[in-house]
Amino acid sequence: MKSAVSPRREEDFPEWYQQVVKVADLAENSDVRGCMVIKPWGYGLWECIQRQLDFLFKETGHKNAYFPLFIPLSYMEKEAGHVEGFAKECAVVTHHRLEAGDDGKLHPAGELSEPLVVRPTSETIIGATYAKWVQSYRDLPILINQWANVVRWEMRPRLFLRTTEFLWQEGHTAHETEQEALEETERMIRVYEAFARDHLALPVIAGEKSESERFPGAVKTFTIEAMVQDRKAIQAGTSHFLGQNFSRASGIRFLSRQGAQELAWTTSWGVSTRLIGTVIMTHADDDGMIIPPRIAPAHVVILPICPKPETRDAVLAAAEALRKRLAALAFHGAPLGVEVDRRDIGGGVKNWDWIKKGAPVRIELGPRDLENGTLAVSRRDRAGKEFLQTDAFVEQAPAILQSIQDALYAKALAWRDEHTRVIDSREDFRAFFTPGNPAKPEIHGGFAKTHWCGARACEERIKNDLKVTIRCIPFDAVQEAGRCVECGEPSGRRVIFAKSY
Amino acid sequence: MKSAVSPRREEDFPEWYQQVVKVADLAENSDVRGCMVIKPWGYGLWECIQRQLDFLFKETGHKNAYFPLFIPLSYMEKEAGHVEGFAKECAVVTHHRLEAGDDGKLHPAGELSEPLVVRPTSETIIGATYAKWVQSYRDLPILINQWANVVRWEMRPRLFLRTTEFLWQEGHTAHETEQEALEETERMIRVYEAFARDHLALPVIAGEKSESERFPGAVKTFTIEAMVQDRKAIQAGTSHFLGQNFSRASGIRFLSRQGAQELAWTTSWGVSTRLIGTVIMTHADDDGMIIPPRIAPAHVVILPICPKPETRDAVLAAAEALRKRLAALAFHGAPLGVEVDRRDIGGGVKNWDWIKKGAPVRIELGPRDLENGTLAVSRRDRAGKEFLQTDAFVEQAPAILQSIQDALYAKALAWRDEHTRVIDSREDFRAFFTPGNPAKPEIHGGFAKTHWCGARACEERIKNDLKVTIRCIPFDAVQEAGRCVECGEPSGRRVIFAKSY
Repeated sequence: MKSAVSPRREEDFPEWYQQVVKVADLAENSDVRGCMVIKPWGYGLWECIQRQLDFLFKETGHKNAYFPLFIPLSYMEKEAGHVEGFAKECAVVTHHRLEAGDDGKLHPAGELSEPLVVRPTSETIIGATYAKWVQSYRDLPILINQWANVVRWEMRPRLFLRTTEFLWQEGHTAHETEQEALEETERMIRVYEAFARDHLALPVIAGEKSESERFPGAVKTFTIEAMVQDRKAIQAGTSHFLGQNFSRASGIRFLSRQGAQELAWTTSWGVSTRLIGTVIMTHADDDGMIIPPRIAPAHVVILPICPKPETRDAVLAAAEALRKRLAALAFHGAPLGVEVDRRDIGGGVKNWDWIKKGAPVRIELGPRDLENGTLAVSRRDRAGKEFLQTDAFVEQAPAILQSIQDALYAKALAWRDEHTRVIDSREDFRAFFTPGNPAKPEIHGGFAKTHWCGARACEERIKNDLKVTIRCIPFDAVQEAGRCVECGEPSGRRVIFAKSY
Repeated sequence: MKSAVSPRREEDFPEWYQQVVKVADLAENSDVRGCMVIKPWGYGLWECIQRQLDFLFKETGHKNAYFPLFIPLSYMEKEAGHVEGFAKECAVVTHHRLEAGDDGKLHPAGELSEPLVVRPTSETIIGATYAKWVQSYRDLPILINQWANVVRWEMRPRLFLRTTEFLWQEGHTAHETEQEALEETERMIRVYEAFARDHLALPVIAGEKSESERFPGAVKTFTIEAMVQDRKAIQAGTSHFLGQNFSRASGIRFLSRQGAQELAWTTSWGVSTRLIGTVIMTHADDDGMIIPPRIAPAHVVILPICPKPETRDAVLAAAEALRKRLAALAFHGAPLGVEVDRRDIGGGVKNWDWIKKGAPVRIELGPRDLENGTLAVSRRDRAGKEFLQTDAFVEQAPAILQSIQDALYAKALAWRDEHTRVIDSREDFRAFFTPGNPAKPEIHGGFAKTHWCGARACEERIKNDLKVTIRCIPFDAVQEAGRCVECGEPSGRRVIFAKSY
């Protein structure tokens, strides 16, 4: 079967992914290694994600602010675990001007007395600021989010999933009590979980990271984990309970209700443009991108079909009239996004362009449709097209979009469930994660729900042998007695093991 | 007269400005020299500006995208004028990790083979990308905008007006013909002009820069110039016609309709967080910030006055009910922003907080008001308060906001007109720009509408002697014969001279 994307998913998943990003016109590599150019269609996706998440953050009491791009090198040293986690991937600014050298070329000049690190994340610089803002318990909580770019030097970059520069949001909050900070940490992972489910059509598993997978400097890290179509996991968002580690490092002290000097309890939480990579790997198919309607830059694309020049004006006018009718409708409280592709190229090329870009609904409108008051509707989540009366389509459009949204979620959920196995023996566990196991090829890879004793040694061994890690200890894990799949020691609940991006 | 801000404007304008930024809780200096922290109230202002401008950009056919933060050093050299303009203020990344040295401290490590410049503006990196996207005239125009942070190393930083890192948008377009690119350049300066007038309540003069004040590498630079309360000018936005300079440097070539290889014609245009500084310097007074309603993060602030604990619940409930009624109203197509200040502090302190922050309308609501169905309304642009029936206020709220918006514009316009002088003699010109001129203290400073021969030498001399520059050659300058205020040579139209930020 011919497909628009080559190779197909089962032929070469990583290369298929790159091709989808390309043919869907989402992003491309720049000349700066590891840094991507996010193209208008891809950035439109990010704008939808950003607007909707921003609304959810504000609904939960947060305000946006903006902190410096640069962090003094000495700040990075303040929290031991933190610097260890990020030192290997920091872009460092050492000079503040350029000067022509004897060779006639430009060279860095004006060396800084203290180098500046381009923020890989902002706990330290924001912590230093909060330390100035907080004097008394009356100044708490601080509930702030920042939309920003961050840089983590990446040796093996992959568009959206792992880039040297990426866009994200980072929430940073400070609280009076441990309990409040813990509640905030969980509230925000639940916001991410619901956003992933309802907006991105991603079924994710929310849970806690094991110690070895925690954010550098955190006391607890909560995560949402998605399964994509090669059955690997992607960490799609995290929320960290930082205890008093960063407030100690930054000196966020306050006079408590009891009149004592105390350290604040802080959290941080973030999602990034990686979400776009996760959406692609979850929903796209061998014909290109499939965008969940709720985050689509355009919900409906109208393709005027004008085979003869003399019908062109009438068809374009009808397309514009339809655009206006649709744009007056709402989908989840916002106006329907409608685009008319007026390019003077063949209908087939136009149609394939929008299939590859993953627009949820395509409408073909030709001269004959004008006479009959009809149009041809194609849903990106299904093959084929349906001929409808224009009025009937306009009436149904929001419901069709919701039906696509639901279908994408259901499909992703079925895929995840199909590839999630309860595994109890070491042998089955190793077989599950060993490619090309001839005995059981049908069960290769995915999520293994498995008992784990809690020892770092077992986790390490599994990671070294199989490149498999604990993705999370699910919040909804049932308390049940079992034995660690690696060492056989007792375990009280199952965790999720998987290969991951 | 006691005022909330000390010093007052006429005592020390620069220090008054710093104090307004501080007491209004808009921004503060960070520990990284020249980089500011934009606090929630200040960032809220930026979000309003951003949302409204973004709408105007999309209405004029632009889409957003995102390009890398880093620019290879060699790209900076491609356009001679450009590198000359920016080389002295570039933050340069030279290393990509940190390593502990023998002293136990962290040091930059992993030197890059080619240093990277943190973008001071993105013509060169975007040009390199467009060169790949453009093959034929069918690929044009490209109409893209980017919201981003940029860095220009700043020796004398000043919050919002001149910071090392700032937030901005930069539009970058490529066109088939010179005419189209010129039209785009003018279209966007007109968008800025209208936005400044209708949203920021800033009367600005739109015009063209003289050669010496052009953007480095541009063929023409259009600008909008505002006058603030110390009668200096602020360049509030610019739009550049880049000719084929950057397309030549980046190799943006296309196959024309005639089958020839041609260079594209490009433009770029931007406004930044400097707009916030301009708004402060224009509208704020000796009691703090005054925010034009159209860009206010909250239009109406409700201050519940609860002198006795037993009335607290009832007053808070009434405040919440009022909030809901107001939030259901619209101001220029968006819901009214309403905040209830529930803090358990004295009414006077609360009231002054919001005066200093510049919220357009404050509502005081106490126990007696509940009985009478009344409230006390204070407009930030006027002294005093008015007692109104709640229903009457709700009905009038959008009109009150528009009246504040109009009053701020009218006041700023009157100020500008009062301090704009038609000047024809060299003597008057020099007197106008010489502080403490005992003969004519009343006409010191402002905009001088003056004839200029067009020679760079005259411009230079005036700049050196008086620190005064040509802000722009207004688009609406009348053609009239006159003589250069410096050398007496013939001139065909007046230009605007002023001191500037």
